Amino acid sequence: MALDPFFDRLEAARQARRTTLCVGIDPRLEQLPPVIRAAAAGDTERALTRFGCEVLELTAAHAACFKVQIAFFEAHGLAGLRAYVAILAEARRRRLLVIADVKRGDIGTTAEAYAAGHLSPGGDLEADALTLNPWMGRDALEPFVKRAVAHGKGLYVLVRTSNPGAADLQDLQLADGGARVFERAADLVQALGAAHASPLTGLSAVGAVVGATGPKASAELRARLPSTPFLVPGYGAQGATSRDVAVCYRADGSGAVVNASRSIVHPPGAENDWRAAVARAAAAAREDLDVVRAGA
Amino acid sequence: MALDPFFDRLEAARQARRTTLCVGIDPRLEQLPPVIRAAAAGDTERALTRFGCEVLELTAAHAACFKVQIAFFEAHGLAGLRAYVAILAEARRRRLLVIADVKRGDIGTTAEAYAAGHLSPGGDLEADALTLNPWMGRDALEPFVKRAVAHGKGLYVLVRTSNPGAADLQDLQLADGGARVFERAADLVQALGAAHASPLTGLSAVGAVVGATGPKASAELRARLPSTPFLVPGYGAQGATSRDVAVCYRADGSGAVVNASRSIVHPPGAENDWRAAVARAAAAAREDLDVVRAGA
Repeated sequence: MALDPFFDRLEAARQARRTTLCVGIDPRLEQLPPVIRAAAAGDTERALTRFGCEVLELTAAHAACFKVQIAFFEAHGLAGLRAYVAILAEARRRRLLVIADVKRGDIGTTAEAYAAGHLSPGGDLEADALTLNPWMGRDALEPFVKRAVAHGKGLYVLVRTSNPGAADLQDLQLADGGARVFERAADLVQALGAAHASPLTGLSAVGAVVGATGPKASAELRARLPSTPFLVPGYGAQGATSRDVAVCYRADGSGAVVNASRSIVHPPGAENDWRAAVARAAAAAREDLDVVRAGA
Repeated sequence: MALDPFFDRLEAARQARRTTLCVGIDPRLEQLPPVIRAAAAGDTERALTRFGCEVLELTAAHAACFKVQIAFFEAHGLAGLRAYVAILAEARRRRLLVIADVKRGDIGTTAEAYAAGHLSPGGDLEADALTLNPWMGRDALEPFVKRAVAHGKGLYVLVRTSNPGAADLQDLQLADGGARVFERAADLVQALGAAHASPLTGLSAVGAVVGATGPKASAELRARLPSTPFLVPGYGAQGATSRDVAVCYRADGSGAVVNASRSIVHPPGAENDWRAAVARAAAAAREDLDVVRAGA
């Protein structure tokens, strides 16, 4: 039985919990809270697993979804990857939605292999959605779209990122009509997703990563991609406010989730009671985002 | 003790074995030779490991290096990744050079985490060189360069790939001076690598992936990047000939390795004696590439 499309499930979660917050799980081993490190007694797999599972538990009520950054698990080889698998399994058990931030991009049967690994039901690495890199073009994205549509999974393509280096290639002006390169990436996202819009929500099956540190570009992209779900990094520790990200929502307040990582999982006050501080930070971020969204 | 730079070691291997062949290990489970599948008796990890280790043994005398495509291991979750780790360990034991074809790309501490995982001596996933994606710009590459230089590792950045989708973003014409986007990616590669050229060979520490299916672009890139090592996919099953790739070498015949995957590991005649056919295909590719290179 095919599942409902990911973006419909995400929209339902957003409405049920009144939140557009995506909590980022990016564990840097040396920054883990002492309470986690002490319990793990030097066991990397255990420390990472416990951290991820505690973040799921502490913030689930305030999050529409989670984003797990696989790089921080690959950093520790197989032990790290076992922890990654355990955290994804725990999220599935709790029926929480996980975006695997893998930024993969390759062609043909290689893309199919990545898609099989990260999107197949029952696989170790199964996530609800993936981030993808568009540099290699349409044939690097199509195999992921096919697999995502078949399994009710979501995709977010890196259209305009929030880092300074986005200027190096993404922001270059094109000879033809003066568009920038990232707008062509947006057009690819539009072309790939349009055929697979949800009848329920109208949302496209192919989303876009749109960095919150460029609100002008974000507003332009929202106009260019009216039915595309956005994943918005840059809120919180990276400096963007809930006002900056408000342009990413559709007129009815749907269509975007906003990621925060460090500001939630390494919050102020963590040195006294890490768990309470994390829950408090997630609740505050949810509220901050929701007030602005509702007023938008 | 810091190792010699990867590209010096690769150049030494090329000269010692008179070969610019890079053998690609991209195992599609359903296409593995019956002799391997029978021995593995349904155990995916064992089948993938055995295939990879046999390819190392059968082709080592004809290859300057190997390229292992991680997607075909991620496709099988942790079992696949254990096989990946085992193949990399076997290559290290045999002192064979491995380029991990991971096409990673992310920023800041996330890039550092990937670099730590794939380039740190002693790590499970340690390879000699990595492929990288430049879409996010300079700050997505710098952390890899720092780590690579520290450990004598190599990097190959996707500058101009060999697939049709390369036209979608890489080949777009820019307003400023009429260059194409991939030429700006090339300039990034040049800027990042120039400070780290080898005193021995003059080769830059940051290489480029330059697809063999566009010989005109390849020749232009060789002129634009005179000291940059190239990794050239597209030879063999993908249709490019040894003549097509000849433009990728420097005037002295150094500076490029040419990848072949399917044409080596699934060669004609494999149904009778897979092992003999693989060794024969690798020897023939070595010879084909070397004759043209020497005459270039």
